[in-house]
Amino acid sequence: MSVRFNLDAGLLFNADIPAEAAATVEKMVGEANKTLFRKGVPAGVPEDEIGRIEDFSIAGSVLGLRIRSGPYTRAHDALFRFRKLIAPSLGKFRLGLRDMEIRSFWIEMRGEFPEGFRMPKLPFILSADRSGDTLKISLRMEAADLENKVPDRLVRLIEEKFQSATYGGKAEHWELIFSSGPKRTMNDSDPTEQMIKQGWIRHALSRGQWIHGPQSVRLWRTFEKIVLDEIIAPLGFTEMVFPKLTPWEVWKKSGHAKGVYPEIYYVCTPKTRDPEYWEDVGDYFKVTGEVPVDMIRERIDGPIGGLCYAQCPSFWPFVQGETIANDCLPIRVFDRSGTSHRYESGGIHGIERVDEFHRMEILWLGTAEQTVGIADRLHEAYMRVFENILELEWRCARVTPWFMAQEGMVGTAQDTITTPSETACCADRVGTTDYEALLPYSGSWLEFQNVSINGNKYPKGFSVKIQSGTECWSGCSGIGLERWSASFLAQKGLDPANWPEKVAKIYGEPEEIFRFM
Amino acid sequence: MSVRFNLDAGLLFNADIPAEAAATVEKMVGEANKTLFRKGVPAGVPEDEIGRIEDFSIAGSVLGLRIRSGPYTRAHDALFRFRKLIAPSLGKFRLGLRDMEIRSFWIEMRGEFPEGFRMPKLPFILSADRSGDTLKISLRMEAADLENKVPDRLVRLIEEKFQSATYGGKAEHWELIFSSGPKRTMNDSDPTEQMIKQGWIRHALSRGQWIHGPQSVRLWRTFEKIVLDEIIAPLGFTEMVFPKLTPWEVWKKSGHAKGVYPEIYYVCTPKTRDPEYWEDVGDYFKVTGEVPVDMIRERIDGPIGGLCYAQCPSFWPFVQGETIANDCLPIRVFDRSGTSHRYESGGIHGIERVDEFHRMEILWLGTAEQTVGIADRLHEAYMRVFENILELEWRCARVTPWFMAQEGMVGTAQDTITTPSETACCADRVGTTDYEALLPYSGSWLEFQNVSINGNKYPKGFSVKIQSGTECWSGCSGIGLERWSASFLAQKGLDPANWPEKVAKIYGEPEEIFRFM
Repeated sequence: MSVRFNLDAGLLFNADIPAEAAATVEKMVGEANKTLFRKGVPAGVPEDEIGRIEDFSIAGSVLGLRIRSGPYTRAHDALFRFRKLIAPSLGKFRLGLRDMEIRSFWIEMRGEFPEGFRMPKLPFILSADRSGDTLKISLRMEAADLENKVPDRLVRLIEEKFQSATYGGKAEHWELIFSSGPKRTMNDSDPTEQMIKQGWIRHALSRGQWIHGPQSVRLWRTFEKIVLDEIIAPLGFTEMVFPKLTPWEVWKKSGHAKGVYPEIYYVCTPKTRDPEYWEDVGDYFKVTGEVPVDMIRERIDGPIGGLCYAQCPSFWPFVQGETIANDCLPIRVFDRSGTSHRYESGGIHGIERVDEFHRMEILWLGTAEQTVGIADRLHEAYMRVFENILELEWRCARVTPWFMAQEGMVGTAQDTITTPSETACCADRVGTTDYEALLPYSGSWLEFQNVSINGNKYPKGFSVKIQSGTECWSGCSGIGLERWSASFLAQKGLDPANWPEKVAKIYGEPEEIFRFM
Repeated sequence: MSVRFNLDAGLLFNADIPAEAAATVEKMVGEANKTLFRKGVPAGVPEDEIGRIEDFSIAGSVLGLRIRSGPYTRAHDALFRFRKLIAPSLGKFRLGLRDMEIRSFWIEMRGEFPEGFRMPKLPFILSADRSGDTLKISLRMEAADLENKVPDRLVRLIEEKFQSATYGGKAEHWELIFSSGPKRTMNDSDPTEQMIKQGWIRHALSRGQWIHGPQSVRLWRTFEKIVLDEIIAPLGFTEMVFPKLTPWEVWKKSGHAKGVYPEIYYVCTPKTRDPEYWEDVGDYFKVTGEVPVDMIRERIDGPIGGLCYAQCPSFWPFVQGETIANDCLPIRVFDRSGTSHRYESGGIHGIERVDEFHRMEILWLGTAEQTVGIADRLHEAYMRVFENILELEWRCARVTPWFMAQEGMVGTAQDTITTPSETACCADRVGTTDYEALLPYSGSWLEFQNVSINGNKYPKGFSVKIQSGTECWSGCSGIGLERWSASFLAQKGLDPANWPEKVAKIYGEPEEIFRFM
């Protein structure tokens, strides 16, 4: 798809531009077209793809410019470059640049538009007309929008939608890497039902939310000990505490702001802490026994963000803007300090799909080689745990990376992530490996954890550099305690007598502290 | 303050009431006034304080009733009692009761209204006129509102406001129980500043929120180990996992819905999970780089509740509606599974006052004696920890109970909690003990944890009973990890070499895994 940018703008000076300045303007326009606009453009790019001032006009205090470009030194970039050139030149005539006006800005995109393509409703668009293979988009732009690169983002987004209409329905990527083969199972029932019946868990009062009793939590702590002893300690990970309320600032940098909206639990703040402002809300409850949701709605701001969704983005402000010393790499940390929340499809479902869940999140960063190396060692460690300790029937597969899925994308990382050539050795390793366990009661497979190599995505988003200058990469791995429980109990049942020896030994004697009449 | 209820209502039958039925009605009215309305009224209550049908009328299919009462068998209760009596009696005349209409309902409250008293804006009120010592309140009531006991709640609330206007400005209760006396301090600086400087913590991107690095988390885990070894294990507490998103249903039963609104982080849910519904929100971000908060606001429901504020209410649905066997009491559990959130006053402040914090919450329930007994043992255990292990300069005091403070009340529990006489032995023990540590850098005292005996409040709110029939009580104790850190580090400094031996030993070698250029 080819693209052309068309910009008519005016530079407003503090006084009328004298006739004798015309020659200077003409000279500067020539210089800009000939050299300034070519800076940074690769050799061999055709003339008409590079920004160019096609015409100018002087009327009173305004210098009018007609700028056209293809994808190189785009019309709006050309405008800002030219502004820097012309302002001092006209200073000689005692003219000061006061302001800029964008008279019109339109983009032409040319390509074979697929059958199903319809122009999306997007901000800034005055009109969008398609005629044959050409889409002409008129924009309402102010200088600040151009400086903020709005046209570039718009073009990228339209291209993205164009591609999704062309290659739409592209399947989730899924490619088997390893399968444990069949294992003996000790259970053919739904473990959630069994846990409820035996008092291990009880549904809480919000959707997809459970209260875990002593037996269930003891199993979680058993898993946690296995992870600490077999994975965290030998691989040298150190505990940190990542925040659990995620403000927009984090999701803007992590990329989640692109598409995570349907599944977020949003967080809003009171407009004020003044108790008087809230008195009648409390009074309403005291009188009716009901909480006046509509009254509250009018008194809250935001949303300011949402509850923890992916666990690792909140780590990154700790290193944001920093250059990390070579000798402390690879950095290896983990967090197990709170809940994650996803607005899942409705109804009460088992502990394998919940709205509120608990996860140990492992995170590492370093050079590309270091990052890939740790992912490999982590995979080996998990393998030992699943094979020799939990004795699960499991498999793992390369899938669409979680960071793409959470931005609403399909395909593989190689479709979207570009890294410098120095990391070429590892570039095809960027992506997510899902670990799945068989649920004998349903015959289906449950994704119970993953390992991801995220390439340069987060270091880039949060401006993290490495002392040596080589690109910084990162990886993460989420261990879902509900998912581990669901997988393990579905295959082994709730009776520790039937569990693999090591697990049963750590678990110890089951405790029943509640007895109801 | 005395109160009178005045109700004019009509019972609507399916056909005209025949003249021969009048004698039956008269007989039933007499019977109701003489016996039915006196059931449950203590002996010696004056005649005119008990509900009474003062007059009735028959017009077509409607039986009109004029009912008056003082505080006993209130007019609306009398109406429902009479309905049950009259319906079968008129069945003999082939009359079926179809409906009820509330023609008018007003309440008279008489008392010495204080200077500052103004009638609060409350729901259901048509008019409220005060003349001298009498407040006459006309209500818009439907039968369902009367059945839902709205008038009783209104009267209680007005009395509460009357009292608060009378005794307003009643001080927070604070009564010293114990003081450790002066201890040698190793630090006179603000520990937050020191932690930032030494890379232990870094402010996160939401207000009052920190990311904790390895050194800080190691101290938390040191505290956690001390609590587990010295308190949790010897006193026999077992770990559970309480939910961290709190829906209104929980706060309605816990009482928080009465007044916690100014400090809540509210949670809202997407109107739908349909990705198409959210597509233009993501597009807006992709084009502008900004999250369109107003667009999102229109697409979310709720708030459905808020983030965990007090940690123990979310436990109670686990036992809600149950009768607990004698032999498993006292039940002793704890939770350390996630964050609590409070909308604190603005600005960046130290780790002693944060919006997002971490707490181990200890909870127990049983008979009044058991509950008080555990609180006492817990206090002794804390005392040993603060004196012999942390070696803190600390004190503790009886304060306004947290469950009252969080409902916007002052005073002591004895002002509000009433329990049966069987618990008289323990009644004066209901309340909260705060533990405070000296912050040498400011000379002020920081509340760093508490122990509370909550009486029958939560078992009552969540309908929990004990097999023996004796009243169920509960207690709780919150250990704030940020507050423990702030107290300990403010007194001992950040260098483990200066820490009490036992703490330093568990903490071990400090780890610095980050080094920035």
